[in-house]
Amino acid sequence: MVDFQVFKGGKEGIHEATSHRKIGPREVLVKITHSGLCGTDIHYKEQDMALGHEGAGTVADIGNEVSLFKKGDRVGWGYIHDACGHCKQCLRGAETFCPERKMYGIANLDQGSMGSHAVWKEDFLFTIPDEMSSEDAAPLMCGGATVFNALQFHGVKSTDRVAVIGVGGLGHLAIQFAAAMGCEVVVFSGTDSKKDEAIKLGAREFVATKGQKELKVSKPIDHLLVTTASQPDWNLYLPIMAPSGTIYPLTVSNDDLKVPYMGILLNGLKIQGSLVAAREIHREMLEFAAIHNIKPIVQTFPLTQDGVIDAFQRLEDGKMRYRGVLVA
Amino acid sequence: MVDFQVFKGGKEGIHEATSHRKIGPREVLVKITHSGLCGTDIHYKEQDMALGHEGAGTVADIGNEVSLFKKGDRVGWGYIHDACGHCKQCLRGAETFCPERKMYGIANLDQGSMGSHAVWKEDFLFTIPDEMSSEDAAPLMCGGATVFNALQFHGVKSTDRVAVIGVGGLGHLAIQFAAAMGCEVVVFSGTDSKKDEAIKLGAREFVATKGQKELKVSKPIDHLLVTTASQPDWNLYLPIMAPSGTIYPLTVSNDDLKVPYMGILLNGLKIQGSLVAAREIHREMLEFAAIHNIKPIVQTFPLTQDGVIDAFQRLEDGKMRYRGVLVA
Repeated sequence: MVDFQVFKGGKEGIHEATSHRKIGPREVLVKITHSGLCGTDIHYKEQDMALGHEGAGTVADIGNEVSLFKKGDRVGWGYIHDACGHCKQCLRGAETFCPERKMYGIANLDQGSMGSHAVWKEDFLFTIPDEMSSEDAAPLMCGGATVFNALQFHGVKSTDRVAVIGVGGLGHLAIQFAAAMGCEVVVFSGTDSKKDEAIKLGAREFVATKGQKELKVSKPIDHLLVTTASQPDWNLYLPIMAPSGTIYPLTVSNDDLKVPYMGILLNGLKIQGSLVAAREIHREMLEFAAIHNIKPIVQTFPLTQDGVIDAFQRLEDGKMRYRGVLVA
Repeated sequence: MVDFQVFKGGKEGIHEATSHRKIGPREVLVKITHSGLCGTDIHYKEQDMALGHEGAGTVADIGNEVSLFKKGDRVGWGYIHDACGHCKQCLRGAETFCPERKMYGIANLDQGSMGSHAVWKEDFLFTIPDEMSSEDAAPLMCGGATVFNALQFHGVKSTDRVAVIGVGGLGHLAIQFAAAMGCEVVVFSGTDSKKDEAIKLGAREFVATKGQKELKVSKPIDHLLVTTASQPDWNLYLPIMAPSGTIYPLTVSNDDLKVPYMGILLNGLKIQGSLVAAREIHREMLEFAAIHNIKPIVQTFPLTQDGVIDAFQRLEDGKMRYRGVLVA
């Protein structure tokens, strides 16, 4: 049995607690070095559960049947911790939709990436490429995997025009991935304040949307990634979509999705629900990021109770540029 | 110049009028023998325009450069009359999304399928297969093309489970096409009144939805074709969709599309706007229908002012079983 520290949410605020785990034969004890902070974490801040799902660390111990990792390896993990391995979704490489998937906020509530250690199945850990720091790797485990999956799983082509709404934790990674894939990238943001950064990250076109009644782009958009914390005004975006274009609402929202019906029909548009990446695409994401030097822009905080609280506050204030990383 | 009769909509009610056309070098004068009546026509009933977009007839005359048809050929046409032929959408075989597409309700308002004749570009006419009567062909020109396109253009596989909401003009054709493609077909209808017919048309499973708080199906649905006149209660249908399943809202609606956001996201569902078929898929549809003996179940009316008015009334009363055809 291993004891380790975690940072839990709760009505009483974020606080430290102790968890205990046995390391199963095919499980790995990870000493956490870094944790990303994702917008989704905010939804769980008041739950009685360990926080964090963008983990990076080093292998501290392994179960006696572990074959993929050895002590000292740098590894990461994300939203999904387990799947059945034998259903249709698992067998077609979409285990993120396995009916028995175990994921953040629902299963394994006693451990997260904000803590000293965690114990995970080796099959759901990822090797961090040598060229990539663990600090840069952590935000890719959910944020990077989410935007890369939208582009990769649904077949974006390098000749397509990809637009990203929002330059934040997800958006600033989406710009880099789409640009590295060869796509023309258009960025929509409230004001011009992030324009220079967006262009530096790979955008070819930047549109400030605040107060606009109509959006102007040089050519229609084939794929629209929505990374803002709330839903955009769909009436603005439908007219700039190319026929048969796809809209990916990537952020969590408790409102209904409400879009103009005939705009979807007459242009043959597609609204594509999309989650984090399944493991094969997650691996491709890490390799692709390493090859193309795709890195999050991070603000770091100490992985302590105060550090975690500060990081949440910064994120909730809308001031994170662009991903918070807690460093042990 | 050719004079011909049309039936026009208008505030004063459906009435007969005369149109005039010159037959261009690549145009064909069609003597109309049959016209289907589609739910979409109801939306145009009070417009000052010739009604009808499910035409079948015989070639009565041809322009001097026409090469595809000769006098006496049986031909049909549907919603789309023209496209530019050189844009991205035209060149990728999706001319239904050509920005210069000419379609029913927007262009060529002086002629429709409810009339004595019409003059169309030969490139937008379809040969009616020898095995198919013109009465059966007419409803395929829009209704058949719409449901077949949803299945064919978006890649439904024969191993997929296809569900159809609504047994009406579109639904009763969708059941037949999907069954002939080898798909397991599930039908949702308000009551059991159309159950026997749905099974006869090829459904394997039938669910009466009226008053249900939860829908029960033997296995999840991969493709859901919505063919009812108004939007269904999406909260009922999202839980029975398979991961990565697709929803095709096929009917015209002036309401917004409003669906539970997280249900789409967590299951990776897709909402796919879909129109009538482009020409290559339209041709495949006619050939496939001929080979598999797919036929609309029709109620016929005389192609006269009274006949047209009666047919509209029957359709608006929800009593058409299942597609009205006006016969000259």
